[in-house]
Amino acid sequence: MLRTHTCGELTIKNIGQEVTLTGWVYRNREMGGLTFVDLRDRYGVTQLVFDANKDKALGEKAASLGREYVIRATGKVVERSNKNAKIATGEIEIIVSALEILNASKTPPFTLEEETDGGEEQRMKYRYLDLRRESLKNNMLNRHKVAKAVREYLDEKGFADIETPFLIKTTPEGARDFIVPSRVNQGEFYALPQSPQTFKQILMVAGFDRYYQIVRCFRDEDLRADRQPEFTQVDCEMSFVEQEDILQMFEGMTKYVFKKVRNLDLPTFPRMTYADAMKYYGNDKPDTRFGMLIHDITTAVKGKGFKVLDEAETVGAIAVTGASEYSRSQTDELVEFVKRPQIGAKGLIYVKYGADGSLKSSVDKFYTPEDLKKWADAAEAKPGDLILVVSGPASITRRALCELRLEMGTRLGLRKKDVYSPLWVIDFPLVEQDAESGRWMACHHPFTSWKKEDEHYFESGELAKIRANAYDMVINGVEIGGGSIRIHDRKNQEKMFTTIGLSKEEVEKKFAFILNAFEYGAPPHGGLAFGLDRFASMTIANEESIRDYIAFPKNNAGRDMMMDSPSTIDEAQLKELGIKVEIKQ
Amino acid sequence: MLRTHTCGELTIKNIGQEVTLTGWVYRNREMGGLTFVDLRDRYGVTQLVFDANKDKALGEKAASLGREYVIRATGKVVERSNKNAKIATGEIEIIVSALEILNASKTPPFTLEEETDGGEEQRMKYRYLDLRRESLKNNMLNRHKVAKAVREYLDEKGFADIETPFLIKTTPEGARDFIVPSRVNQGEFYALPQSPQTFKQILMVAGFDRYYQIVRCFRDEDLRADRQPEFTQVDCEMSFVEQEDILQMFEGMTKYVFKKVRNLDLPTFPRMTYADAMKYYGNDKPDTRFGMLIHDITTAVKGKGFKVLDEAETVGAIAVTGASEYSRSQTDELVEFVKRPQIGAKGLIYVKYGADGSLKSSVDKFYTPEDLKKWADAAEAKPGDLILVVSGPASITRRALCELRLEMGTRLGLRKKDVYSPLWVIDFPLVEQDAESGRWMACHHPFTSWKKEDEHYFESGELAKIRANAYDMVINGVEIGGGSIRIHDRKNQEKMFTTIGLSKEEVEKKFAFILNAFEYGAPPHGGLAFGLDRFASMTIANEESIRDYIAFPKNNAGRDMMMDSPSTIDEAQLKELGIKVEIKQ
Repeated sequence: MLRTHTCGELTIKNIGQEVTLTGWVYRNREMGGLTFVDLRDRYGVTQLVFDANKDKALGEKAASLGREYVIRATGKVVERSNKNAKIATGEIEIIVSALEILNASKTPPFTLEEETDGGEEQRMKYRYLDLRRESLKNNMLNRHKVAKAVREYLDEKGFADIETPFLIKTTPEGARDFIVPSRVNQGEFYALPQSPQTFKQILMVAGFDRYYQIVRCFRDEDLRADRQPEFTQVDCEMSFVEQEDILQMFEGMTKYVFKKVRNLDLPTFPRMTYADAMKYYGNDKPDTRFGMLIHDITTAVKGKGFKVLDEAETVGAIAVTGASEYSRSQTDELVEFVKRPQIGAKGLIYVKYGADGSLKSSVDKFYTPEDLKKWADAAEAKPGDLILVVSGPASITRRALCELRLEMGTRLGLRKKDVYSPLWVIDFPLVEQDAESGRWMACHHPFTSWKKEDEHYFESGELAKIRANAYDMVINGVEIGGGSIRIHDRKNQEKMFTTIGLSKEEVEKKFAFILNAFEYGAPPHGGLAFGLDRFASMTIANEESIRDYIAFPKNNAGRDMMMDSPSTIDEAQLKELGIKVEIKQ
Repeated sequence: MLRTHTCGELTIKNIGQEVTLTGWVYRNREMGGLTFVDLRDRYGVTQLVFDANKDKALGEKAASLGREYVIRATGKVVERSNKNAKIATGEIEIIVSALEILNASKTPPFTLEEETDGGEEQRMKYRYLDLRRESLKNNMLNRHKVAKAVREYLDEKGFADIETPFLIKTTPEGARDFIVPSRVNQGEFYALPQSPQTFKQILMVAGFDRYYQIVRCFRDEDLRADRQPEFTQVDCEMSFVEQEDILQMFEGMTKYVFKKVRNLDLPTFPRMTYADAMKYYGNDKPDTRFGMLIHDITTAVKGKGFKVLDEAETVGAIAVTGASEYSRSQTDELVEFVKRPQIGAKGLIYVKYGADGSLKSSVDKFYTPEDLKKWADAAEAKPGDLILVVSGPASITRRALCELRLEMGTRLGLRKKDVYSPLWVIDFPLVEQDAESGRWMACHHPFTSWKKEDEHYFESGELAKIRANAYDMVINGVEIGGGSIRIHDRKNQEKMFTTIGLSKEEVEKKFAFILNAFEYGAPPHGGLAFGLDRFASMTIANEESIRDYIAFPKNNAGRDMMMDSPSTIDEAQLKELGIKVEIKQ
């Protein structure tokens, strides 16, 4: 090694030792012939002292060092007069006797301090510099800790880590596949896996009983903010289980990871049905750090001659604790909030339920205080609350109240960074109807089984009522993972494929292998998958955004700004592959 | 869980307990109204007993079970009268009181015994059945153990597991890239990584100091037996190191893995230069389980009027211990062996060095016993040896003697399954000249640094003499891993690119990002990569072939026989990607 110690380990115990350190020049300053250099490496920062009065050449060399130069310095560990309690090495410094410049550095295009002046694009382009910043560095190291804790738990529980192929067959599970032209078999293509779903099921058929893999997956989706075309999944499957076994197993895993990485004890995860989540929170990944539940107050508001409400399909409300004194401009802001196109509500009615029990609303023309008291009761409001009411089509009302609830939670400081509120959402619908095409699609994926007691809805054609054996793990309003008990026999799998409108030919072409496998002793099985990027960002910092938890993310256009990819390739390369670029106009 | 125990855990201690087991019907037989079923799961086999005399319906149901049916059986653990000492559960059996068929099975197309009657193709197609066989199952579970041990060691040494992207830029490092058309950026392409080489170097520039990843890599090569288009690499890199640090670190890792997985203590790894490996073993991955070194006997044989040898560029020999009594048909066989087109030698001369000291050769016309004694001395032969001599161009002679040595080692039983002989091969050449194009190419890859003392050969144009700071780990003639100390400054990296004939434009297009990174404080660094597939097969079974250590391998034509991929895709999908199939004739 070019060093005897790292920049993070020398303390008062090392005083008097001759040491050699290597690292980057983080900060340097001169003072009366002395040059002080903060030398940084992954492990910490150590102060180097160069004394030009004692060694002029050395002092000059030290003074010439620029930021981010890579150096090697040998010297003696001494006690510092002005100690720095903030860093582990703050009690000592190194009186340097020899200095070697291992590599020079241009001046970085942005500062590497926590509050950097680098813009998003610059930081993506010079990712290797951005990754030197303390928070990003720690995110990567902590992500490793998360993955390590996951492995420890699953290894201990007897899960076998088995690798599945990346060059597979195009078998859309909802999103588009990335495809890979085959040179050896011109005109044919591999696809990159959206998940190892079918392979992990095949592994259950093969008898591996418990499988996991931390594995890259690919989806060629139209990119939105914070969506990556490639992402990492903790992928798990178990045989001879029922839903409850899986919930217990992976609740245990999540608790283990939080304990290991953050030393936090998560509470027992409550279960909430999909129906309840939609009803009380307006979506299927409720942030349960706070209450402020949505209430259907339709019956309480109708029949007073106010057309807007009388004709509404649904009227819903939330009661915002202690917000009855909101000003006109504050309530106006909320009206604008729900009218944004992303939400699309027509407007917002509010009722101020004064601490003194008085009730005043934005629709006093139509409703007496007695009427409003009924609203308040239906919304489970207390004196001092602001009741926010949205009406209209069920789906829009739900969305508006969901967003409004989250917004008010944020405003009131109820979505605390240091609070984790995990739960399981269960009993998802099996299929949903596409609004445009009218086609039924699998909510989870087409390998999900359904509840025996809902089987009769296939015959009655009430497909939306069929509940799947599917479940999601949600923490603080973020979906961390999800899965299902799978279909394990050919007949039911074919029934599902038929239900979602796949033709016999499509099924044969894409899924013959798994249908065949089901005929050779497939055990009952189920599993789930966690999105590691999000699992890591939530565990490490209770943060929903994932980009700072991926070493080399792509931007919103799917580009790697550092490598500048994707890029054009040689004509010869395309020719070998038997393909031609033909851009559609 | 559908079971109370697995099929591998019940012993005499469980006698009297009521248990429920699940698994596959492995074997069944009837005897006087009793049906015996060997129930198998991942963990073992347990004998079930069904008594038709006591419960006729149950007995009939049991008798109806086919091979590989998935069942669930409840019953009482009793002591067996005829114990089976070969299996962990051999002292007990289950008297079954309830049986549920969880899934039927067609009769497998081949038996799942160790000595299966399934052909290669059938076994690939029904991989889920083949994986039920004991040896394949154990290979997968042991492969997990290998990966786990690797992680334990590297975690403990402070290596950070950091994920690098799969959708990267095409930057050929020798082999062809697989490419992925971008839909969002039509006409542009990602490439799948041949290795995370540039990313791990970027991570060193970012300051991560020690990195590892167990990661899939892709090479679109013309397939040979036992080559896979996708393979897994244990990829590692360290900063502020010299070659010796890396050899120590990964020798330590290999020892740790063998100890953990096989409870074997590997000896200290000797170092051998590339030059010595080529000279004494005829290739750069010597099987050092046995001696039988190659000797250059050119000077000892020349000048006796035998044209073949007098005119040969090189004459080399090996002395085969105790084989002086080989019969004419045995030596003829060896002559045919070296004349095979894969080897291409013109022929083989042999000398029988009798135990009594007599010397007889296949060229006695030209050489006296005294002459032959000189041959024997040059070949370091002892009485009782058979000396095998090949002559001709250096490269062919080397290859022939290398293969002959391995063949004789196998015939004499010197390549023992239970012996591991690891070593480091060091001082590889930096570049080699392509015989056809005359172009210089990097032996390892273009990021490899060279020995300072060989720098002058750049100026003299003697490029073949430049030694790289590159090293391979070899065990029993198999290359397990390899790596190098990297170039870490822009100037030298550009020099290397120029040496291997890359134009400024190519360099700019493909490698600008890494050259730029080298200007912002790149530390000295180096690393290596292990092929996990081969590392696992060698560790687990001292076996060179890897296919039985990959869950879902592709065949020699790069096809997944189970999924039947690659496959054609929809016209619409191609159109979206802006590409068109145009097969070359």
